[in-house]
Amino acid sequence: MVYILNNSDSVLNQFMSEIRDVEVQGDPLRFRYNMVRIGEIFAYEISKKLPYETKEVSTTLGIANVPVLVQYPVLATILRAGLPFHQGFLNFFDKSENAFISAYRKTHKDRSFSMNIGYASMPEVEGKIIILCDVMIATGSSMVMAYKELIAKGKPLHTHIVSIVASMEGLHNLKKYLPNDETTIWLGGVDDELTAQAFIVPGLGDAGDLAYGKKI
Amino acid sequence: MVYILNNSDSVLNQFMSEIRDVEVQGDPLRFRYNMVRIGEIFAYEISKKLPYETKEVSTTLGIANVPVLVQYPVLATILRAGLPFHQGFLNFFDKSENAFISAYRKTHKDRSFSMNIGYASMPEVEGKIIILCDVMIATGSSMVMAYKELIAKGKPLHTHIVSIVASMEGLHNLKKYLPNDETTIWLGGVDDELTAQAFIVPGLGDAGDLAYGKKI
Amino acid sequence: MVYILNNSDSVLNQFMSEIRDVEVQGDPLRFRYNMVRIGEIFAYEISKKLPYETKEVSTTLGIANVPVLVQYPVLATILRAGLPFHQGFLNFFDKSENAFISAYRKTHKDRSFSMNIGYASMPEVEGKIIILCDVMIATGSSMVMAYKELIAKGKPLHTHIVSIVASMEGLHNLKKYLPNDETTIWLGGVDDELTAQAFIVPGLGDAGDLAYGKKI
Amino acid sequence: MVYILNNSDSVLNQFMSEIRDVEVQGDPLRFRYNMVRIGEIFAYEISKKLPYETKEVSTTLGIANVPVLVQYPVLATILRAGLPFHQGFLNFFDKSENAFISAYRKTHKDRSFSMNIGYASMPEVEGKIIILCDVMIATGSSMVMAYKELIAKGKPLHTHIVSIVASMEGLHNLKKYLPNDETTIWLGGVDDELTAQAFIVPGLGDAGDLAYGKKI
Repeated sequence: MVYILNNSDSVLNQFMSEIRDVEVQGDPLRFRYNMVRIGEIFAYEISKKLPYETKEVSTTLGIANVPVLVQYPVLATILRAGLPFHQGFLNFFDKSENAFISAYRKTHKDRSFSMNIGYASMPEVEGKIIILCDVMIATGSSMVMAYKELIAKGKPLHTHIVSIVASMEGLHNLKKYLPNDETTIWLGGVDDELTAQAFIVPGLGDAGDLAYGKKI
Repeated sequence: MVYILNNSDSVLNQFMSEIRDVEVQGDPLRFRYNMVRIGEIFAYEISKKLPYETKEVSTTLGIANVPVLVQYPVLATILRAGLPFHQGFLNFFDKSENAFISAYRKTHKDRSFSMNIGYASMPEVEGKIIILCDVMIATGSSMVMAYKELIAKGKPLHTHIVSIVASMEGLHNLKKYLPNDETTIWLGGVDDELTAQAFIVPGLGDAGDLAYGKKI
Repeated sequence: MVYILNNSDSVLNQFMSEIRDVEVQGDPLRFRYNMVRIGEIFAYEISKKLPYETKEVSTTLGIANVPVLVQYPVLATILRAGLPFHQGFLNFFDKSENAFISAYRKTHKDRSFSMNIGYASMPEVEGKIIILCDVMIATGSSMVMAYKELIAKGKPLHTHIVSIVASMEGLHNLKKYLPNDETTIWLGGVDDELTAQAFIVPGLGDAGDLAYGKKI
Repeated sequence: MVYILNNSDSVLNQFMSEIRDVEVQGDPLRFRYNMVRIGEIFAYEISKKLPYETKEVSTTLGIANVPVLVQYPVLATILRAGLPFHQGFLNFFDKSENAFISAYRKTHKDRSFSMNIGYASMPEVEGKIIILCDVMIATGSSMVMAYKELIAKGKPLHTHIVSIVASMEGLHNLKKYLPNDETTIWLGGVDDELTAQAFIVPGLGDAGDLAYGKKI
């Protein structure tokens, strides 16, 4: 299943316009805050698909039977660009366990490249619901690699794969390389083009640089 | 039109369970934060009904045509309990104009009471979309009075009336005393009972006290 | 005692430069956020003067004797401009009781004006430490009136009067009309001039409008 | 130079008592928020030592000459425990560049261990002021390794080394292995004991687990 949130109108589109806009990007505080807010919106939309159970809660004046989460999803993200986006999920799922994964491109002599895992800090995932987020899906290779890393030591109940902007090719690859019955894909929007250097067009540029500054 | 969000499952219900729960209420930081999060969720759901227009945005690599808000809604709230709830709306509509209104109960000799406006700080509302929020709708008289105060000096395009918990009687009164074609009602949930002292049961207690401490 | 924080260097001065700057003021999100951050800094500096007591705390590995607040100060502010500034204090004193007061100028036939209390929501203040904050001190009459309102029903232990920018005349009036032994004045900076219309020059404009939009 | 903030009273001590307290630790939202607030306090105290220059700023009513930061410090942290602490610094230095470094313990056959760098994302540091933060200093080896990684590709102007809780031995090692004239050490507090397993006593437990959940 693939959900593309900007197919319908909401304030998410306002936030997405701001993170794309070169003029607004000059303020990293606003850029990161937009990532956080977009994370919160995805968290909320995904929360509609999570399991709930009724809990009896004592108020000062009586008893209320209210639905609560059966389990908090594990929140996984890819470093470093995903950090403010992940914060948005954590704002709404404040008792969740978290996973942080870094993937890097290793360029080979023939100029081809492969993805490798650098850092990985993960909880037990067996039987749990996972939300794995990254800001952008260019080729999709980081996301697929992070997913494989996550499931290497346990089988989650289900994994929600989330990204703000994907390329058409990236979305195609996610559908191709992720198990359809065990994953749900959530995107803010899909852009047509992917350059030979794996940049999404029109995209938004390098989300990590925009949030945290250029790295050497 | 009336939308009642806890009729379907989402993390909103988790937050609503926490603000009702006497044990969780002991932490005012979490209480206020739940108000903020609930405000954000309402802001997002209401944003789906707002008008958008396409804007051409320059990214570093191209041009994106993205929907943006035609106008930011005016965010109005009732003091003091509504303040953290209002903050949630403001987090998502960060360029909005704002209105703050206080209403107080004036008890008469015969023990009946009427609602009066104390403080009111409002922008021009003519032709604008308004979101008027308060944490609870007991009898609905504060909300109706605040609405009348808002429209006294101009005619809004439309007003979204929002509350986290309403009593059945309060909802009935809102539908009776607000113009149906000019207002939309958004509630988190509806509780059955309203006591003679105008407390909602099971409700959550005094939201103002829980957020800011008892007042004399 | 009067403390003027911008007499020495700190990032507070960076934030104060931003709230004054007409170009930066165009972003109300950043304007309000600067108010919040400045509130946190004042909260921290004032916290150095508050009483602490040693508490024995159990860690997972042992016992730590740590100083904790003897009492949380009551956080009072003046509507509406003071709200984001107050939020900064509340971020650091998250268990505090709160007071909200509105004062308005009543202009008389002879063009003179007096200050009146509109809204007031206050906790018991007897024997407590109060932090009373407002963004600006023009003539000081709102602050003096709010202080009198606060102490009308009880005698605080001590009151910290806080403002980001004061005029020389406003500071002079605070010292004249507030009891020196029961109050401490904390200012971000002091500006020389006050116009006949009671605007501080260079000042920063109308903080309420900048945070929340123009009111009618 | 070594600054130890809990040598004098402030609300920092309240926050430190909460992160140590096993009962308060049960709420990861509050735990992370305390890390953020402590980060803001360190950011502010360190900001008093940073260079400023006077900028002429146009207000709506005049010109103000205000001190602003000459340069924003680079904010570096160690994964994953340092992330919420780092967020506090970023809240106050919102235009800073950032560095993220992971260090891991490699245990050898003889049960001794050495520290290794896993992930490193860093900006150019030549001539810049760095703030390198981590929640705890047990032996100090992660911090020393992260510092060496940071200066491997450039010579910073100065580096502020920051931690909330250090062991006596860890502080000793920092003073021994870091160049005194190029670094300043900032600590929240110093605990006496370090166990053979390199846990600080009384300490606060595993800050990464408390913020983000246990990892496998």
